[in-house]
Amino acid sequence: MQLKLASSYGFCFGVKRAITLAESYTNSATMGPLIHNQDEITRLKTDYNIGLYSKLEDVKNDDTVIIRTHGIPKNDLKQLKQKDAKIINATCPFVTTPQQIVKKMSEKKYSLVIFGDESHPEVKAVKSYGDDVHVVLEPSQLEIANFKYDKIATVAQTTKKKEKYLEIVNFLILKYKEVRVFNTICDATFENQAAARELSKEVDVMIVIGGKDSSNTKQLHNICSENCTDSFLIENYKELQNSWFNNKKLCGITAGASTPDWIIQEIVNKIKKL
Amino acid sequence: MQLKLASSYGFCFGVKRAITLAESYTNSATMGPLIHNQDEITRLKTDYNIGLYSKLEDVKNDDTVIIRTHGIPKNDLKQLKQKDAKIINATCPFVTTPQQIVKKMSEKKYSLVIFGDESHPEVKAVKSYGDDVHVVLEPSQLEIANFKYDKIATVAQTTKKKEKYLEIVNFLILKYKEVRVFNTICDATFENQAAARELSKEVDVMIVIGGKDSSNTKQLHNICSENCTDSFLIENYKELQNSWFNNKKLCGITAGASTPDWIIQEIVNKIKKL
Repeated sequence: MQLKLASSYGFCFGVKRAITLAESYTNSATMGPLIHNQDEITRLKTDYNIGLYSKLEDVKNDDTVIIRTHGIPKNDLKQLKQKDAKIINATCPFVTTPQQIVKKMSEKKYSLVIFGDESHPEVKAVKSYGDDVHVVLEPSQLEIANFKYDKIATVAQTTKKKEKYLEIVNFLILKYKEVRVFNTICDATFENQAAARELSKEVDVMIVIGGKDSSNTKQLHNICSENCTDSFLIENYKELQNSWFNNKKLCGITAGASTPDWIIQEIVNKIKKL
Repeated sequence: MQLKLASSYGFCFGVKRAITLAESYTNSATMGPLIHNQDEITRLKTDYNIGLYSKLEDVKNDDTVIIRTHGIPKNDLKQLKQKDAKIINATCPFVTTPQQIVKKMSEKKYSLVIFGDESHPEVKAVKSYGDDVHVVLEPSQLEIANFKYDKIATVAQTTKKKEKYLEIVNFLILKYKEVRVFNTICDATFENQAAARELSKEVDVMIVIGGKDSSNTKQLHNICSENCTDSFLIENYKELQNSWFNNKKLCGITAGASTPDWIIQEIVNKIKKL
């Protein structure tokens, strides 16, 4: 089987930074999974004894707590500080930015619109910094929005698509006198997407590696499926199925922003042996 | 000839206000034509002795100067104030708003983009209130723009089309971290346009009344021409040609935002007699 890697894939700046930070705090624990990749979480536990708190109440005084790349809600951070825990903030700087924007714009009496998934930890954290905050995925959701203020500011979940963000922003511009648009979408995601799009056009089978609950990995899989019907999303080499590669010559590989290189390498090695 | 008027046409709020103001200052003079309609300027001269300055140097101490609906550049206003002239500000409040926005945003170190015609008096005045101001009609003009600051604020000439404004704003949002969008486009223009669009679909001939140098009248004419090939732009009843109405049954009428009712009435009367 011939293999080709996308020209851009895998870990983004924020994830690399979080893992480097975590590795330097042996015996610490993260507040929620550090990144959206179970195998990497397991490696950090095995190699560095980095644990995982499932709830705030588990944190004890003098614990070393690592805040995940997606950030945590404002009140959770406040409670951690009250516990006198040592806090290592591994929130991606590109996620800290919308948190600060939401805080500042709320202080200036803007109503806020977040383009993102209401249930995503990044969005929950960003939302927590505001006063009148509305989370939407579609412009139609704004038709029934009841804004507290007459000026609107907008931010986007870092992994969302720019085209849809523009749709949401345009709806607001036509309706409100001032719309303050902050482009908080991260280019790293889109570099991986553009590379996956190109590669999926030329291969017979496409393997997308990443967490099945990772928003950006799922988007990579969707993009690849548009061009290559045999596109498969897997988390590790154990999920590979021989039948996917029957009568195929060229296999493309890409990986989500939370996928470590060692997982990709294991998969590459296994496919080479097929 | 059967006649039908558009459901919305003619004078907007700002023009009505300016004429009412002017009529209350007999023997005054305006700095540039008060509105884009020569016949109305003539009427104000005949009935109220309201003159016209062609340049600032013509203004003498103790003169009463009326500032036109489009506003005047900041430095012109400063010079008028130095002359100790009595200043009557008939700038449309919807035009004063973008002037103030450009001033405030420049103070806050935003680079400014005005969507409008560089040569239009309204745009010249709005531009004069800023520091780093770029006037464009197309997104492509922004590709070579060299902004002084990293935050961008945008305003639009009040009579421009919203769709094109969104194109310009969207180009900026994808390229800059913050774009502060002020929707300064005036709905009055678009109410006239929507009504003209509807009416031009059902008539055999369409008469668009207004100044030939009036931006919003020209747009009305363009819109009508899309639906009714026999659409004619005239400034007064003398320009009507009998041949336009040969074999026609229904004539539609609309008028630009600077067209007074008495001019429309003269044209209606003449067409009725055809």
